[in-house]
Amino acid sequence: MNSTESRIPTLLAFGAHPDDIEFGCGGVIAREAHAGRPIHFVICSHGEAGTNGTPAERTTEAKRAAGILGATVEFIELDGDACLEIRSAHTIKLAAILRRVRPALVLSPTPEQNQHPDHWRLGTLVRDATRLARYGGLAELRDVTPHAVSGLFFYALGSGSEPTGQSPVLIDISAPEIIADWTKAMAAHASQMKTRNYVELQLARARVHGLNAGVGHAQPLWPNDPLVFGSLAMLARSAGRF
Amino acid sequence: MNSTESRIPTLLAFGAHPDDIEFGCGGVIAREAHAGRPIHFVICSHGEAGTNGTPAERTTEAKRAAGILGATVEFIELDGDACLEIRSAHTIKLAAILRRVRPALVLSPTPEQNQHPDHWRLGTLVRDATRLARYGGLAELRDVTPHAVSGLFFYALGSGSEPTGQSPVLIDISAPEIIADWTKAMAAHASQMKTRNYVELQLARARVHGLNAGVGHAQPLWPNDPLVFGSLAMLARSAGRF
Amino acid sequence: MNSTESRIPTLLAFGAHPDDIEFGCGGVIAREAHAGRPIHFVICSHGEAGTNGTPAERTTEAKRAAGILGATVEFIELDGDACLEIRSAHTIKLAAILRRVRPALVLSPTPEQNQHPDHWRLGTLVRDATRLARYGGLAELRDVTPHAVSGLFFYALGSGSEPTGQSPVLIDISAPEIIADWTKAMAAHASQMKTRNYVELQLARARVHGLNAGVGHAQPLWPNDPLVFGSLAMLARSAGRF
Amino acid sequence: MNSTESRIPTLLAFGAHPDDIEFGCGGVIAREAHAGRPIHFVICSHGEAGTNGTPAERTTEAKRAAGILGATVEFIELDGDACLEIRSAHTIKLAAILRRVRPALVLSPTPEQNQHPDHWRLGTLVRDATRLARYGGLAELRDVTPHAVSGLFFYALGSGSEPTGQSPVLIDISAPEIIADWTKAMAAHASQMKTRNYVELQLARARVHGLNAGVGHAQPLWPNDPLVFGSLAMLARSAGRF
Amino acid sequence: MNSTESRIPTLLAFGAHPDDIEFGCGGVIAREAHAGRPIHFVICSHGEAGTNGTPAERTTEAKRAAGILGATVEFIELDGDACLEIRSAHTIKLAAILRRVRPALVLSPTPEQNQHPDHWRLGTLVRDATRLARYGGLAELRDVTPHAVSGLFFYALGSGSEPTGQSPVLIDISAPEIIADWTKAMAAHASQMKTRNYVELQLARARVHGLNAGVGHAQPLWPNDPLVFGSLAMLARSAGRF
Amino acid sequence: MNSTESRIPTLLAFGAHPDDIEFGCGGVIAREAHAGRPIHFVICSHGEAGTNGTPAERTTEAKRAAGILGATVEFIELDGDACLEIRSAHTIKLAAILRRVRPALVLSPTPEQNQHPDHWRLGTLVRDATRLARYGGLAELRDVTPHAVSGLFFYALGSGSEPTGQSPVLIDISAPEIIADWTKAMAAHASQMKTRNYVELQLARARVHGLNAGVGHAQPLWPNDPLVFGSLAMLARSAGRF
Repeated sequence: MNSTESRIPTLLAFGAHPDDIEFGCGGVIAREAHAGRPIHFVICSHGEAGTNGTPAERTTEAKRAAGILGATVEFIELDGDACLEIRSAHTIKLAAILRRVRPALVLSPTPEQNQHPDHWRLGTLVRDATRLARYGGLAELRDVTPHAVSGLFFYALGSGSEPTGQSPVLIDISAPEIIADWTKAMAAHASQMKTRNYVELQLARARVHGLNAGVGHAQPLWPNDPLVFGSLAMLARSAGRF
Repeated sequence: MNSTESRIPTLLAFGAHPDDIEFGCGGVIAREAHAGRPIHFVICSHGEAGTNGTPAERTTEAKRAAGILGATVEFIELDGDACLEIRSAHTIKLAAILRRVRPALVLSPTPEQNQHPDHWRLGTLVRDATRLARYGGLAELRDVTPHAVSGLFFYALGSGSEPTGQSPVLIDISAPEIIADWTKAMAAHASQMKTRNYVELQLARARVHGLNAGVGHAQPLWPNDPLVFGSLAMLARSAGRF
Repeated sequence: MNSTESRIPTLLAFGAHPDDIEFGCGGVIAREAHAGRPIHFVICSHGEAGTNGTPAERTTEAKRAAGILGATVEFIELDGDACLEIRSAHTIKLAAILRRVRPALVLSPTPEQNQHPDHWRLGTLVRDATRLARYGGLAELRDVTPHAVSGLFFYALGSGSEPTGQSPVLIDISAPEIIADWTKAMAAHASQMKTRNYVELQLARARVHGLNAGVGHAQPLWPNDPLVFGSLAMLARSAGRF
Repeated sequence: MNSTESRIPTLLAFGAHPDDIEFGCGGVIAREAHAGRPIHFVICSHGEAGTNGTPAERTTEAKRAAGILGATVEFIELDGDACLEIRSAHTIKLAAILRRVRPALVLSPTPEQNQHPDHWRLGTLVRDATRLARYGGLAELRDVTPHAVSGLFFYALGSGSEPTGQSPVLIDISAPEIIADWTKAMAAHASQMKTRNYVELQLARARVHGLNAGVGHAQPLWPNDPLVFGSLAMLARSAGRF
Repeated sequence: MNSTESRIPTLLAFGAHPDDIEFGCGGVIAREAHAGRPIHFVICSHGEAGTNGTPAERTTEAKRAAGILGATVEFIELDGDACLEIRSAHTIKLAAILRRVRPALVLSPTPEQNQHPDHWRLGTLVRDATRLARYGGLAELRDVTPHAVSGLFFYALGSGSEPTGQSPVLIDISAPEIIADWTKAMAAHASQMKTRNYVELQLARARVHGLNAGVGHAQPLWPNDPLVFGSLAMLARSAGRF
Repeated sequence: MNSTESRIPTLLAFGAHPDDIEFGCGGVIAREAHAGRPIHFVICSHGEAGTNGTPAERTTEAKRAAGILGATVEFIELDGDACLEIRSAHTIKLAAILRRVRPALVLSPTPEQNQHPDHWRLGTLVRDATRLARYGGLAELRDVTPHAVSGLFFYALGSGSEPTGQSPVLIDISAPEIIADWTKAMAAHASQMKTRNYVELQLARARVHGLNAGVGHAQPLWPNDPLVFGSLAMLARSAGRF
């Protein structure tokens, strides 16, 4: 990954398990990849607690899916699948990655607590890490230049993990090649296809959001902070047509 | 006003009283005017119930302020200052204006009820009117082609009228010429300067929002509907630095 | 309609326009009809402000759709399509219908204000009317015995009109014959099929809710008041599987 | 406890301290016990940090109270009274209990943070544990078959710990024998009767909820996930009469 | 009523029906009356739509209850019981009363919409009227000096009408003579005692709030605006003991 | 510190970093100090992770600032700057301080999670500690008499950390000597003045709150629990004038 050569700043996406990024925001990833944006995935377990798929299988699937989406991928060890805890050592580890990758934009699971225990804890850790990444005096991170991200956005794996009382932004992912790449990336997680209709669920969710937005498909993201715009020209579309 | 000749689509701002637009979103207006966007004000009373200023004075002040901001202005009669009611006849009247002016973007006071009675009622009426403007079968509006706006945004005149449980977007209004124009437009409402520090209040609010956003000054707007973006490239800045 | 002969109490559904009930809660209606529950529709306009379909066509479509769902239907005049106002005369008119039909359960559009102006106003009127229906001293309603409904539930026509900060209950509508009847009833509104994918939107929404609930399809309803149960035996299923 | 012989599935209630279950949802427990449902209590401390009562006394009181309510009871060690932390080891321990007891319904303190520190932490742990209980690959739980509960409900010990922005369901506990058993079970915690009017508080809360529900007494529970119903026939009563 | 002679400023309480004030905030009224504060009631109907009691009986009961509480009382005509509408003429009428009575503190039903239709409308009208009371230019009110109240507080008649997402303040009404006066004032509404346990409900609500506050009984009020204090010395007690 | 000799009970303020108290609630502190209230600061790190200032410099600055405000100050070790974790050992340590200092009022950063990771964790710990401080049986705290505080209030360092869905109380800090002391105390943190306009931000925030409250400057505090008042006489001012 060499984001400094690119003119579009890097997007960094965190996932607690090998398939979270694809199912939660894979359409957005595909959209950005088609625009030439460098993309990097950080996956915080090998899915070893899941009902289906061995860690080795799931690692292979995640690499294949990242390849389809044009992203690089790395795996890190925190506490293991289904065992994640909120510890400052983790926050610092994630902040170190943020300083190394130096992304403009960061994607993470939401910190809403009524979902898989790893998801909300990772969302909390990533939010904290984006702050630590820019504090200059942290002894543990002394060797890496501080870095401030431009925006942190949360993705949801289902309606239960969507933040309440906050509006999402909708990203238009209607282009056929984007839907195709996204679907292919989700399907790459073959071990997870056995019992649940995850692919169908995510496509149906994106279709509902798309119809609301007046486009084919859309994925919602929840900004961690108020968005700042230089003018209204960037805000020329909004949903709410039905 | 000849928005069809312009390449930037028109912005239409509604105010319940002659000074609402300037105090609530005048910085945003100045910013858009400097970008060459056609701007039109619709003011729904002459401020005749206010403690200071005659209707004639306030009309003159509003025209002067609009001129400073580069906006055209029209006054309409609904129920009179402090007497606004929510009636479908008003909604249809506002929808007719929307069809005539055909703006891309609409600004209105928030519909939050704990503020001046005219403000929340006008916010409710404008929201309803943006929907009626695009329904084809309305007998009263038969002669004008339906029109769908791209975005409806609410402005707040103080923290009491800011929507709770919803994040604003922040518009950067830091450029000195924008602050200058905005301040001048607010000061044009000379009759309102006698008893309250409205200008100072709005500049302080914009400074607080600006410091949060990492810029000089910013004004908040609340989108009525989720915003739709073609890619993340448009979302490259967010607040939350302190 | 002769609800007194039936052992299952009547369901009364209100719609602002000829197709609202079918699109907003048609699956629930089909489910109840299959259980033998008497169902009555009250439609408060002929859809005369809509872009497509004449009032006569839409009335015919609504009657056909009600027939498919096994419901009786009546049309009432309030203020006309897109012109509904909140007036106590309307509340009393709706309360009189509640006293005549004497339903156990009532369905209505949500009173959330960011949707079609008629929808939230009708939701507000119906909520008020369920209270007036049980007050004994109303002069205008003196001739009809007061009636207290067992439950008022709101339906949403899209995600924009779903109540925030309140959980829905999900009704399982997965049985093939129910999906078939519901789809057929929506399709009966042929004049509305020209420009928007309403049927697909509602089926996709119901599929997303169904997958969340661990069933095929489900429709959400929002109870107006806390639900009361005689024991936990009735609460043996909940969503949240993904 | 032999829930497989019973035709009514087991109810499992968690308490952080020896008296939490009785004070927070004892009326519901009594109601279910009278219906013949097997009930099991898991108590996560011996109340050793409380102002009154020794651990031995409180254990005895809890056993007596459980006996009155017809429940079996076990005590587990987490971090001790007033010292509970959110650790994945605890979540796994609770998930193991869920797999062993295999309840349909689970009761737990709410995760609202403005209450006794142990209560919200236990609520968080129980919510997470209900998810881990159904994941197939957890090494620590390999020997026990995964188990999915039908519903997780939270109980509140006072109005400060009631979830905001979410409606409860109300369980009718008006029958005299239920009120009698519940009162007796609360009074079994004799060591806690010295300084506070806990019994009176809970009876008054239940009376207020009951009057709202149109019954004698009712206790509120907050479902963790949207409830799923096969038809509206199960929803024939709701509160809101005053 | 001669509030100018009194050193404690007047309290003005609005009720939609003859018994609303007593049941919703009668304990607070009794507390203030015992402190020597002048109190005035404005009742906006004669309860003519209620199930029990004639308008004449209810008027007599209200006068007796006001007498017990040491309040003066006046009846005004708006639209009649159960028929209240939100009209600017009403707002102006209420504003005129505010200018005449010139209270420091105002009590009104909450504007929460899920309650008796007259209650939320009156709450909305009173909130708007407190603003109009201080605008200098209103033609209809030209003859009366503008007046700004110090605080507007809402009272709730039941838990369904309590504002969500906002904390109440609790007023200690534990003194025996206050409970006695309040109970007597509620009981003065003899016609309303026939079918519902209103007195018991309100006493139980006040007992629950009192136990939470560490006192005998307390009644909740919801301030319309943030409270302003000169120092922390006034904030020396808060609830949350259980 | 000798709070027993003073007739005004002690105020105890917690800060995660050497400057948090001054920037978040320094005006309130100055106001109380001028009233003669004993004030004690507990600072939980030496700011060693900050971009500017050495721990020694920052300790010196904090002592100077406390001196300006008339407060005593102590530093405690938890996990170090930017590394704070939520542990019961910390809660007990804070509870022990509460029992030693025995304050009536406690100030702490809010527990809102979207801010500096140390702030929300400290807010959570302090809230929990105020409860543990009054439980009689805690072995670790056996040697110190339990203590119940009268009120816990949260302060916010910026709008991002203000609690949503809850109204603040506003403390009037307009007196020139209070603004002067507060400004001087903020400026004492000279190392933090290099890159950000913290002093200007806080003064602008206080000015906006002051103008809303109808006074010069005001600082908001969020009570952890409903406030209890003996009568309405203490509630004679509220904001909401614009």
